[in-house]
Amino acid sequence: MTVSLEYSNSSISRKKLRNYARKACSTKTLKKRVPITEWLPKYSWSFLIQDILAGTTVGLTAISQGIAYAVIAGLSPEYGLYASLTAGFVYIIFGSCKYVTVGPTAIVSAMTGKYVAGYSPDFAILAAFLSGILILLMGIFNLGFLVEFISKPVIKGFTTAAALQVISSQLKSLFGLTGASGNYFAESVYNFVVNIRTATLWDPVLGIITVIILIILKKVGADCKRTDDLLKQIRWFVSLARNAVVVIVGMVVAYIIKRTTDNEPLALVGDIDGGLPTIGYPPFNTVVGNETYSFLDMLQTLGPKSISLPLVIVLESVAIAKAFSEDGRVDATQEMISLGLCNIIGSFAKSMPITGAFSRAALNYASGVQTQAGGVTNCILIIVALTLLTSTFYYIPKATLSGLIIVALWTMVDYEIFIKLWKASKREFILALITVIVCLCVGLEYGIVTGVTVEALMLLFSQSRPSIEVNTLRHATGEIIVIPLPEVVSYCAAEHLRRLLLKVPLKSNTDCTTVIDGANLRSMDSTVAANILSVIEDYEKKGRRIWLLNFNCNVEKLCLVLNSNISDKFVNVPNVLDLVIPFHKV
Amino acid sequence: MTVSLEYSNSSISRKKLRNYARKACSTKTLKKRVPITEWLPKYSWSFLIQDILAGTTVGLTAISQGIAYAVIAGLSPEYGLYASLTAGFVYIIFGSCKYVTVGPTAIVSAMTGKYVAGYSPDFAILAAFLSGILILLMGIFNLGFLVEFISKPVIKGFTTAAALQVISSQLKSLFGLTGASGNYFAESVYNFVVNIRTATLWDPVLGIITVIILIILKKVGADCKRTDDLLKQIRWFVSLARNAVVVIVGMVVAYIIKRTTDNEPLALVGDIDGGLPTIGYPPFNTVVGNETYSFLDMLQTLGPKSISLPLVIVLESVAIAKAFSEDGRVDATQEMISLGLCNIIGSFAKSMPITGAFSRAALNYASGVQTQAGGVTNCILIIVALTLLTSTFYYIPKATLSGLIIVALWTMVDYEIFIKLWKASKREFILALITVIVCLCVGLEYGIVTGVTVEALMLLFSQSRPSIEVNTLRHATGEIIVIPLPEVVSYCAAEHLRRLLLKVPLKSNTDCTTVIDGANLRSMDSTVAANILSVIEDYEKKGRRIWLLNFNCNVEKLCLVLNSNISDKFVNVPNVLDLVIPFHKV
Repeated sequence: MTVSLEYSNSSISRKKLRNYARKACSTKTLKKRVPITEWLPKYSWSFLIQDILAGTTVGLTAISQGIAYAVIAGLSPEYGLYASLTAGFVYIIFGSCKYVTVGPTAIVSAMTGKYVAGYSPDFAILAAFLSGILILLMGIFNLGFLVEFISKPVIKGFTTAAALQVISSQLKSLFGLTGASGNYFAESVYNFVVNIRTATLWDPVLGIITVIILIILKKVGADCKRTDDLLKQIRWFVSLARNAVVVIVGMVVAYIIKRTTDNEPLALVGDIDGGLPTIGYPPFNTVVGNETYSFLDMLQTLGPKSISLPLVIVLESVAIAKAFSEDGRVDATQEMISLGLCNIIGSFAKSMPITGAFSRAALNYASGVQTQAGGVTNCILIIVALTLLTSTFYYIPKATLSGLIIVALWTMVDYEIFIKLWKASKREFILALITVIVCLCVGLEYGIVTGVTVEALMLLFSQSRPSIEVNTLRHATGEIIVIPLPEVVSYCAAEHLRRLLLKVPLKSNTDCTTVIDGANLRSMDSTVAANILSVIEDYEKKGRRIWLLNFNCNVEKLCLVLNSNISDKFVNVPNVLDLVIPFHKV
Repeated sequence: MTVSLEYSNSSISRKKLRNYARKACSTKTLKKRVPITEWLPKYSWSFLIQDILAGTTVGLTAISQGIAYAVIAGLSPEYGLYASLTAGFVYIIFGSCKYVTVGPTAIVSAMTGKYVAGYSPDFAILAAFLSGILILLMGIFNLGFLVEFISKPVIKGFTTAAALQVISSQLKSLFGLTGASGNYFAESVYNFVVNIRTATLWDPVLGIITVIILIILKKVGADCKRTDDLLKQIRWFVSLARNAVVVIVGMVVAYIIKRTTDNEPLALVGDIDGGLPTIGYPPFNTVVGNETYSFLDMLQTLGPKSISLPLVIVLESVAIAKAFSEDGRVDATQEMISLGLCNIIGSFAKSMPITGAFSRAALNYASGVQTQAGGVTNCILIIVALTLLTSTFYYIPKATLSGLIIVALWTMVDYEIFIKLWKASKREFILALITVIVCLCVGLEYGIVTGVTVEALMLLFSQSRPSIEVNTLRHATGEIIVIPLPEVVSYCAAEHLRRLLLKVPLKSNTDCTTVIDGANLRSMDSTVAANILSVIEDYEKKGRRIWLLNFNCNVEKLCLVLNSNISDKFVNVPNVLDLVIPFHKV
């Protein structure tokens, strides 16, 4: 008998293992973990135009932003392009959100800069590799659920603030100002006001014309579809291509001015160092000046604070994916896996740390990208930029790119949700407001962390004050005070429960019996149990009667482990009033 | 009519105000906020002996520890005594826990040292003043409830680890080693092993004899009371005075050795700079070397990180009060108010930042202190030490003090609770273990923060996975799937709920209707509402029926604010089955 039982057990575990293996290798898992196998077979030619258009617009922005962000991280410009390139290809295969484009971003570059400034690019590449490993592990251990703790008001606050921040950071280029731009909204606005006198003539003119053209072209395409008549089709196409249109127009204008006047009144993207990155292992040792750094030396230079880098990478990308996905649904675990792989594989081709970029995702969204294939055009453009077109991209006016980014992000500023939240729940409105204010005044990463923390604390606080309705039953021989416990009493509610238990019988003047009704209670921890036990002691000292009614066996066991003397306090009867007779028999 | 209504409203608010004022000025509030008014009138002469004995033992330790901790903070020895003195008097009046003795502690001194090293004592005094203000504000704003989030397993883990840490830090003096002691258990043990060769002969001999005497004297007094016969009374008294006895014996031994051999083979407490501290405003500006520091300069020198100082002060003292109070009950708000006042008033008499000290609380506890009056003896001893007895205290052997501290703390190491937790709840056992390990290997303040954070995260995670039991009712025309929502669905459970709602109808092959039953639901936030709305859209797209049954008006209003088109989805009927006929009429 025993043998057959064991056999059946082992066959069950084998079955489980087989099921697990089958699940891991199933088509569904493949589609979930390698999303290109999901969208590529369904790809239709009708997506192609929109993907190419979106990819082109994003690509043009990625080139200029890549250059800017590499400089922020203290690296030479081409590293920003290397970073967008390899990671871009990896994201096409593993990325779960079609709007996200990966590459260097303002926040991540600034953080990388902190760790590598004064050393060599090798440190940035190693940081990308190590961050990638950590992020991939987070994905493999399925820590994506953590993202469920970012609520809608926090996301909306973050999105609005991020849009305002990117807009404010573009004011510098739009007006052709000299001086720094700023790492967060308040700083950018302050710098803008301080430096406004350095504004040139042509940059703001071109920038504002770009903005006006974009708004007009957007209106032109309203209500037009690809299936309409020819005129409407052209309107639809021009409207869709508006971002690429303004960039090309800007480039042509800059080129003509340069050719005719031999002068550069507009700030241009300028020279790019040509050539593709060399492929090789990430640098596990390096030489800076005369000093050789071993792997351990490099780790020490990066320091323990660099652990925040992978966290910010995940936070930034997932928050963006959540903001742009239609229903706020994001497979965060998959996003971690793809970001991990982007950083790891990228580091083999000289990539600095990358994440999802908010402004480029907004461009993708505004350009109506259909699938992750938009990234292909983006990557091709970067290759072209690095190999052939360094001289052509030279002429992209920075003011055009700024105008384009500002218009793209203006649509992301969501006033309506604040009005709705105000009407629906003042608590959530304040939460969103706190998130926005911290994002704008301190920085985006601080804002989202503050929002998540404040909301978690609110939830914890509500857990520490469960609503318990005390019932008083009057009976011939006295009163019974029934205190029904809720489904769960957490450790933080232990004090609250104790205060309640100690206060209730004091209010009653007559001879009364207190009953703690545990019928609904599913679980309880030792802090609560210890408090209930101390209350029982208090009651006994004062000669008052107390009973623990209908506690389930797990909870009873917990109490008895802490104090085995109180087993006679537990009673099980279907109705509280049934207790009255046994009470008075005792 | 309106006028009279307004009048009645204003009279209500006046009444509220009056009640509030009455409450604030009541005797109960006075007793709560100035605890000396509670215990002093009840003071009995029988308490006096125990209070004097405990105060003496604690005072002798406070003097030697005060000196040691002042040096840790980079100050000259007398500052450690100044700190125990004024704060000690303030705590007698406002302190809520009779076991707590305030003064400099290892952690707080080490932190203070970080901010003031290389500057002048004025910075430490200003840090005390500013910390005091912040802590007092926390108390006034009633933030004491925060302490309810420290559960029993975390407190027990912290206590055990703190005891082990203090014991390990005393090994150096017990064996008369040279070199540093260590700021946390692992460091102290490591230093002990490294420096064991520097052990002297006489220090360990005296230390171990002290330990043995203490254990014997403790056993001598077992089962003896003050009301017993004379022999037992003497045994009771000697046992109680055991800590003072060993210190005096040690002092005498050291004195005799010095007189007879003119040699100092034992490490002694040594010289103390005499005189009481001068009274004056805390230093709002100071001079270091040739540089003058204004208040703002001083603030900048202390830096934003010094904000952690008041938090650690509160955490350390409240954790100790919680560990030593018989039932774990602590009026944390009152503890904040008294610690705030101790630091503020202390800073007017040259006090460095202070908090409750674990080892001295343990001595108080072991000596059987009866009221806060024990602190009076402690303070008098410090005054005597500062004015008259600097030459007498010179002879206290450090090894005696170490032996005394080790024995006092050994009783605080609580193995039993770990066995109980293992039996009662593996989750809480692991929590306590994590707290202990982090406390021992990284530091006490990190350990308690880790414990609190891990437990809060566990609670948040359990909130994100509410248990929802899905019921399927079969009916002539199909199935009704009823999904009853629990009392509260938090934002972090929104995704879980959505997944459940989307999965359930897929399992059913027949024509079915889904009903989300909100009868128990009391509240919901907009993240959950948004997810339910997106599920409804999904259902509509697939042509499936879904109803929201018996939602209360607040929740319904919330959903309608977010999307007013779904008002026809809400139904109110007493029984789910009542829904079937209207369904099929539609």
